[in-house]
Amino acid sequence: MIREMTKSDFDAFWPTFAEIVAAQETYAFDPNMTQQEAYALWCESPMATYVLVENDVILGSFYIKPNAMGPSRHISNCGYMVSAHARGKGVARRMCEHSQQVARTLGFEAMQFNSVVSTNEVAVRLWEKLGFTIIGTIPKAYQHKQLGYVDSYIMFKWLLD
Amino acid sequence: MIREMTKSDFDAFWPTFAEIVAAQETYAFDPNMTQQEAYALWCESPMATYVLVENDVILGSFYIKPNAMGPSRHISNCGYMVSAHARGKGVARRMCEHSQQVARTLGFEAMQFNSVVSTNEVAVRLWEKLGFTIIGTIPKAYQHKQLGYVDSYIMFKWLLD
Repeated sequence: MIREMTKSDFDAFWPTFAEIVAAQETYAFDPNMTQQEAYALWCESPMATYVLVENDVILGSFYIKPNAMGPSRHISNCGYMVSAHARGKGVARRMCEHSQQVARTLGFEAMQFNSVVSTNEVAVRLWEKLGFTIIGTIPKAYQHKQLGYVDSYIMFKWLLD
Repeated sequence: MIREMTKSDFDAFWPTFAEIVAAQETYAFDPNMTQQEAYALWCESPMATYVLVENDVILGSFYIKPNAMGPSRHISNCGYMVSAHARGKGVARRMCEHSQQVARTLGFEAMQFNSVVSTNEVAVRLWEKLGFTIIGTIPKAYQHKQLGYVDSYIMFKWLLD
């Protein structure tokens, strides 16, 4: 089940969030951010934030927001996180498919990811399978904790036919 | 002379700012934003904001901020605006050159522009002359007031040798 994230959902999800940003392998977020800063970033600043729940356990979460304003307001942006224990089960795929429906419902015409770390091959392949295209490569955009500087991709999908 | 922008500088610059966003030809900002929202966006949210002044008249302004956080914190982002009466005089060039120095001083290693409207040929050519490269094209990213949907470019420059 996918539903909107509550404050107490975020509290339950915080260990996953903190682990993901501390790893410094996928997200361009401050690895030392506080729970309160993370809540503002993930739940308050976006238009909406969702959780994917099974048997009352949160397996993943995503937010949706406009990627820019005014004349570029038709392009959405989403971020997805999956709990460590739930990886490889299609959670990210389900969330991304759902997010595209939400985006269309909110009137968005496209979706853009600004920072897909090139070494995150599972994500890159999944987004490609779901119709996203790499439209740009930012050289040495990401200081990967294990690998040092790696490139990031900008990925994009037009949501309307 | 280039110096930090004050609140009263912004008040003086507001007609230029309002005209540029209302034109919907270059900036992905809400064309109807209030002066207070614009001040927050241009002066409060960035790390620093500057004006280029000649004979006590503001000819242009730019901000600098990180383009992302944590592992991508080494990439800066800037936005530049030039007053209508000051165009074609090298104001944008001087501001961009200065912003690259400011970026290096602040510890940034690169600079990225996320939304250079493809039809803004003067800007695209200037950034290329100043060492920026188009690293990606976002299709139909910008609803240009005169031209309808046009592409936007992502431009990038590595600031260190």
